[in-house]
Amino acid sequence: MAKATFLIAAASASAGAAITAFFMGRRTSSPTSSPAAASTPLPKIPPAEDGARITRADPIAKSIVDPSGWFSYGAPGPVNDLATRTAFFSVYDRRTRNPAWVAEHITAESLTGSKGDRKNSVFVEDPAVPEKFRARLKDYFRSGYDRGHMAPAADAKFDQKAMDETFYLTNMCPQVGEGFNRDYWAHFEDFCRRLTSKYRSVRVITGPLYLPKLDVDGKYRVTYEVIGSPPNVAVPTHFYKIIVGESAATPSPNASVAIGAFVLPNARIDNKTPLTEFAVPVEVIERASGLDFLSLVPTERRRSLCREVNCSIVVREFPPRPPKAATK
Amino acid sequence: MAKATFLIAAASASAGAAITAFFMGRRTSSPTSSPAAASTPLPKIPPAEDGARITRADPIAKSIVDPSGWFSYGAPGPVNDLATRTAFFSVYDRRTRNPAWVAEHITAESLTGSKGDRKNSVFVEDPAVPEKFRARLKDYFRSGYDRGHMAPAADAKFDQKAMDETFYLTNMCPQVGEGFNRDYWAHFEDFCRRLTSKYRSVRVITGPLYLPKLDVDGKYRVTYEVIGSPPNVAVPTHFYKIIVGESAATPSPNASVAIGAFVLPNARIDNKTPLTEFAVPVEVIERASGLDFLSLVPTERRRSLCREVNCSIVVREFPPRPPKAATK
Repeated sequence: MAKATFLIAAASASAGAAITAFFMGRRTSSPTSSPAAASTPLPKIPPAEDGARITRADPIAKSIVDPSGWFSYGAPGPVNDLATRTAFFSVYDRRTRNPAWVAEHITAESLTGSKGDRKNSVFVEDPAVPEKFRARLKDYFRSGYDRGHMAPAADAKFDQKAMDETFYLTNMCPQVGEGFNRDYWAHFEDFCRRLTSKYRSVRVITGPLYLPKLDVDGKYRVTYEVIGSPPNVAVPTHFYKIIVGESAATPSPNASVAIGAFVLPNARIDNKTPLTEFAVPVEVIERASGLDFLSLVPTERRRSLCREVNCSIVVREFPPRPPKAATK
Repeated sequence: MAKATFLIAAASASAGAAITAFFMGRRTSSPTSSPAAASTPLPKIPPAEDGARITRADPIAKSIVDPSGWFSYGAPGPVNDLATRTAFFSVYDRRTRNPAWVAEHITAESLTGSKGDRKNSVFVEDPAVPEKFRARLKDYFRSGYDRGHMAPAADAKFDQKAMDETFYLTNMCPQVGEGFNRDYWAHFEDFCRRLTSKYRSVRVITGPLYLPKLDVDGKYRVTYEVIGSPPNVAVPTHFYKIIVGESAATPSPNASVAIGAFVLPNARIDNKTPLTEFAVPVEVIERASGLDFLSLVPTERRRSLCREVNCSIVVREFPPRPPKAATK
């Protein structure tokens, strides 16, 4: 997948090309910054719940101090709360109280089911996250933001339990409702579902970003609202999706895949805006999120999604549903 | 350690009591939010460099999708880059390009050494962090901020290699120089060193925070600068230190310890400001950072540091040293 595919002139500062220029700077040509470059193996931090003293990989003879002793008080983390749901996996960020990423799998078959109905589902706090780090229903209450699904409820219609699980707050971020979550973003989610007519498997990873912007004094600053009283849940400035289309029924280590990556602002978006304006190289999302994506998929296995399908939304009426803005 | 010890009236919005009120809200009396409460054991995410397919802990019979398949592309992380140095351990945050925490150990003996001299040390990028997530020397260049040590160089005088290691950028955050890094913060670091006259071991964990503040429209927002071109390293709004004084030579699972926790703004601080104004309960730092501290130290083992020692800085001239603001 050539990066040039994604370097599309953008009409607004929040669109893909600007974000790309922002994070890539002069480094797009650096061979070590290739999206296919494997990440360096690194030592791991013991999980916070494991207070065992760790052994130094490289013991210093006769060192007169022992910094590993802190672990006898309990390892600080950070802990990445992994949730393994029926329709998606998610990892939670305890500092922003939003997911870091949510990975789902959809197929033509999974989307034809109708056993799950969102009318039967309720938004729930996730008891697997310790209370002091948990996003709460009351944080969203009257915040002005929707409880926006990362893995969409509509992707889990094949089973009521699967759909119920999409309503955990660990699958949710505060999203602008009108013009975004209920409009452009919903059409974008629909775009992902329509890909199942071409690809046997479609995998989508979705998450929040907190991007800097140029301030009037010439400095770059990240600014985001925090909702709740006391303030608890960060309101992302943007959201990403990386979409992978597979021809095989199961992922194969040799098969090539079609990849599209997008970054959308958490704001009202005119339905006339082409989806391709939000396309970015995968590496841009990696730099912005601190995450690694597709590290095991070398460049020669990557095809460009938007060269194979028409990357555009279809604006259509969605069936009426209960308002998502928190009203209780 | 009674929380009330730390609920001290604060003169400024950035001081301890305000921060405490902020994060604790009405929840200080909740038994489940006790700092001593053990964190819930949670499943772990495979490290990003390990692309092995994970097994579902709770397999769903006949599920027609397999979200774990994403891991065949490589696990996204986040990866917590642990560095095990002679004088400290650190964990890096790949999104903000700052450490999440740096834990060090100091003793009267370790501080009497003089084999390490900061004149022989140079600031260095950390090659253990993948290039795309690395803090760089050029990010700090002409940024207006000091490269501020989390584990202080002066705590590693016992060995030149130990001191050199404190100069990795993974031990560094952008800090306001005049009035903070070179003044109040330096006096605060000196306070930690002076504790070795009373405690056989002193352990200190230090790190950055990104705290929300009340905006003119009544909403809370986090705002922080990002330095570098393209913007790369976040400038924390605050810094924390949790200090533990031990009477024993090595940590004991039964011994009580003296604990002090402090949050200081990354800003000029008048030397007349009492250190106690910045004292907070440990849980406040946990909520703000998403980290767990002292989870294996139950309440009955916790004593209050500031009841045992005079928690105040001593303003004194430090020996002249090369300017820390990046000039090359």
